[in-house]
Order: sequence, then C-alpha cells, then structure tokens
Amino acid sequence: MNETISLLMNHRSIRKYSTQQLTEEQLQTMIAAAQMASTSSNVQAYSVIAVTDPAKKQQLARLAGNQAYIVECPVFLVWCADLYRLKVSTAAYTEGNDTYEDSTENFLVASMDAALAAQNAAVAAESMGLGIVYIGGIRNQIAQVSELLELPELVYPVFGMCVGYPDQQPGQRPRLPQEAVLHRDAYDAAKTVEQVKHYDETMVAYLRERTGGEKSTPWSEIMGDRLAKPTRMHMKSFLEGKGFMRK
Amino acid sequence: MNETISLLMNHRSIRKYSTQQLTEEQLQTMIAAAQMASTSSNVQAYSVIAVTDPAKKQQLARLAGNQAYIVECPVFLVWCADLYRLKVSTAAYTEGNDTYEDSTENFLVASMDAALAAQNAAVAAESMGLGIVYIGGIRNQIAQVSELLELPELVYPVFGMCVGYPDQQPGQRPRLPQEAVLHRDAYDAAKTVEQVKHYDETMVAYLRERTGGEKSTPWSEIMGDRLAKPTRMHMKSFLEGKGFMRK
Repeated sequence: MNETISLLMNHRSIRKYSTQQLTEEQLQTMIAAAQMASTSSNVQAYSVIAVTDPAKKQQLARLAGNQAYIVECPVFLVWCADLYRLKVSTAAYTEGNDTYEDSTENFLVASMDAALAAQNAAVAAESMGLGIVYIGGIRNQIAQVSELLELPELVYPVFGMCVGYPDQQPGQRPRLPQEAVLHRDAYDAAKTVEQVKHYDETMVAYLRERTGGEKSTPWSEIMGDRLAKPTRMHMKSFLEGKGFMRK
Repeated sequence: MNETISLLMNHRSIRKYSTQQLTEEQLQTMIAAAQMASTSSNVQAYSVIAVTDPAKKQQLARLAGNQAYIVECPVFLVWCADLYRLKVSTAAYTEGNDTYEDSTENFLVASMDAALAAQNAAVAAESMGLGIVYIGGIRNQIAQVSELLELPELVYPVFGMCVGYPDQQPGQRPRLPQEAVLHRDAYDAAKTVEQVKHYDETMVAYLRERTGGEKSTPWSEIMGDRLAKPTRMHMKSFLEGKGFMRK
C-alpha cells in the first residue's frame, strides 16, 4: 500500500480541533489541489468561501444545528456549485440567445465539480496532518446561509467543511462490504441487498463494543428511520428559486 | 510539497491507454479507497459498476458519443447514485410510513456520495500509476445506459470513469486563477468575474501555443457557446422517472 492509499484508508471525520491555526499557504495548497480535480468540459463551475471571521462562523454553526466544531475549527470552507460566474462572464457571447444554466444537467455538472474539488482539498488537507469533516447541516437553513455568505443567483452551498488540526483520534466506522457497492458488468440487486444483512451484523457488533452494549441498532433500522424522516424538504424550491434545475 | 499533494497537482485526464490490464487487486484497492470517503450520515448511497465485458464497453462507448477510450481502457467504471439499496433494505422498518427517497435532498446526498467516492478512487488509481478520465457522456443517452447496466429504480449513472495504464502524457490545461474560485468570508461577485478576464488571456496564449496559432478562442466564448447549447435536456424527466427528486 503506497503512502497516498494509506492516507485515504486512514480517513476519519474530525469534530474536535486544537487551537493551532492554518497558515495561508496551507489553505492555498488545499485550493490549488481542489482546482486540479477533473471538471466537466473545463467549466470549473464551483466556488469556495473560506470563512475565518469568528462571528460568521458562530452564525453558521447556529444555522447548521449548533455544531460547535464549526466555531472551533480555524477555517470553515463552504463549497458552492457556481453557475453565476459562467453566466455573467459569458453574457457578451450569449446575448440574444437562449441559455441553459437552469437545466438539471448543468445543476448536476456544477454540483459534481464542487464535490470533486472538495474531495481533493480534503485529501490534500489530511496529507498535511490536518483533519476535516463535511457539514451537510448548512443545508438545514440554506436560504439563511446563502444570505449570510452573499451568494448570488445560480450559486448554492453544497456542503461545508471544517478544517483544522485534529484534537481527537476517533475510531473508524466499518463500511458496507465491498461486494455491496461493487457490481460487475451489471447492477446486481439481489446481491447488494443481501450484503446489507452482513453489514447489519457487523454494525451491531461494532456498536455494542463501542457503547458497552448500550447501543445495538442495525444499520438498516437507523437508515429506515432516516428515510422516513422528511429532511430539508425546502431544497427543491430553494434551488429553483436560485435559478437551478427549472428544466 | 508532499507526495500526495504532488500527485494531486499532477493530474491529467488520460484518453489513451496501453493494453496492460488492471489486476483484480488494483480494482479492489480503488474501491476500498472510494469506500473510505466521507458519506452523508453513513448512508453510503452509491454503487459502482465495473464494466470489463468488451461487448458492453463497445455499447457504452457508442452511447457516450463514440469515445474510443471507453473500449480501449481495461476497466470502465460507472459511478451511480443509489437510493435503491437503502429503500429496499430498510423496507421492513419503514412499512406503513411515508418515506422520502424521492426528495431533492436525498437525490443530492446520493449524488454527492457517488462523487466523493469516485474522486478517492481516482486519486488511488493515479497513485498506482494508472490514469483515469471522467465520462459525462454516459448521460447523453442515460436511459439506454441504465437499461444496459440493469439499473433499477432509484439508481442512476452519475458519470463513467475509464481506468488503465496511460499511453500518453498530455499537457495540463491552466485552471482559473485561484482568486476566481476562492472567496473570503463572503462571495465576491465582482472579483470572480474580473478574474475570468485574466483567465481568458491565459487560455488564449495557451491555445495559440498548443495549436501553433490556429486556435485562440477565449474561455468565456467557449463557455458561452456551451451555455447556449441545450445539452442533455432529458435529465430532469429521466431522473423523476427513476424515482428521484419528485419533491
């Protein structure tokens, strides 16, 4: 196993940070690595807001459901899908023509660009001894987050990312068996569902051990509860309101 | 610059592959690295189809707009957002309750899970001396691709990825200036648009040099043409038909 793979295999989300700051160079290195990720037809349809202002981090933490590590981490990155830059900077060339920034396809392209860039930044951060955690919670009150960060039309915050020096070494949660996610030449529905049963057993054993027997809910039960809970049901109308995926 | 960052900075998309095969171990290592990427609340809502069957690769190449490297690469990975596994394996726990697998939020969660996993796999592949290229073209005829790969409801192919040993060493296209994508504490609309002007100059110079003066179209003009072209306008109805983002 080479150094990079060993780094990837060693990932854990960090939710407790030391007071040590990031250097400007570390931040720029992360973003430079992000920019080298693949991007659909070179559209580079994403932006990232580096939030270091303590008051703003406090507000974001509150909007994301009181996640203290957003305040504690030295830099909070908000990764955004961004078709605004594309729309505005190409306006001179598209004048008089219909344009399709509001297509579901372009929404997807921009969201994917943001995700691939973010993951490169995460890997770069961890290679420098930093820790990260993705924060989907910024979509809880996405309109307020967008306003706070002054996001224009055609820009939306996909997820946040805390970055800083780890002040914890959490264990690694087992993942689904590889055979559950990897299919050969065609999707194997029976197999993937069958594999979840093995994973349920693994997770029950893992939870029991970690909680001294207190918790032992199978993964599929936890996931069932999750699926039955209406979560962030504002997303569709919010995104359409921002100019995305109207067609 | 450490080894991992240097690897990330050295990325280029590979569109020409040698005949050397991947080992099963290399494939499994890539998927293991993919599985260690962050996943929203541990839903792991993605699947990947490893296509090695020559006839199937041929069909996929044709459906993706005759991209020969899909045939030439030893393994073609199709990364899918997958809420089917979640839906079916939690059915016993959700019976009688409404569930929200058709929310835009869950569509986004599954798509992001697929993207983060794929990018980890890409980084792992490159660290082993392999090359990759993402293939958005599998969305050109996404219904046919889905049928060919036997994808059930609530599974859709986000993008493909050719994997193999590089038989070319393409140059690196310059990216937008970092200041175009990196904002501080709030989105800076004026700055990001201003930076595109610098990038246009960079890209004109780059294209001139690469093509011996034959090409010199500014990036924003190329992007304007792209934005004015209706592309994959079937995505919205296809995704809704597959059970995604109905609300």
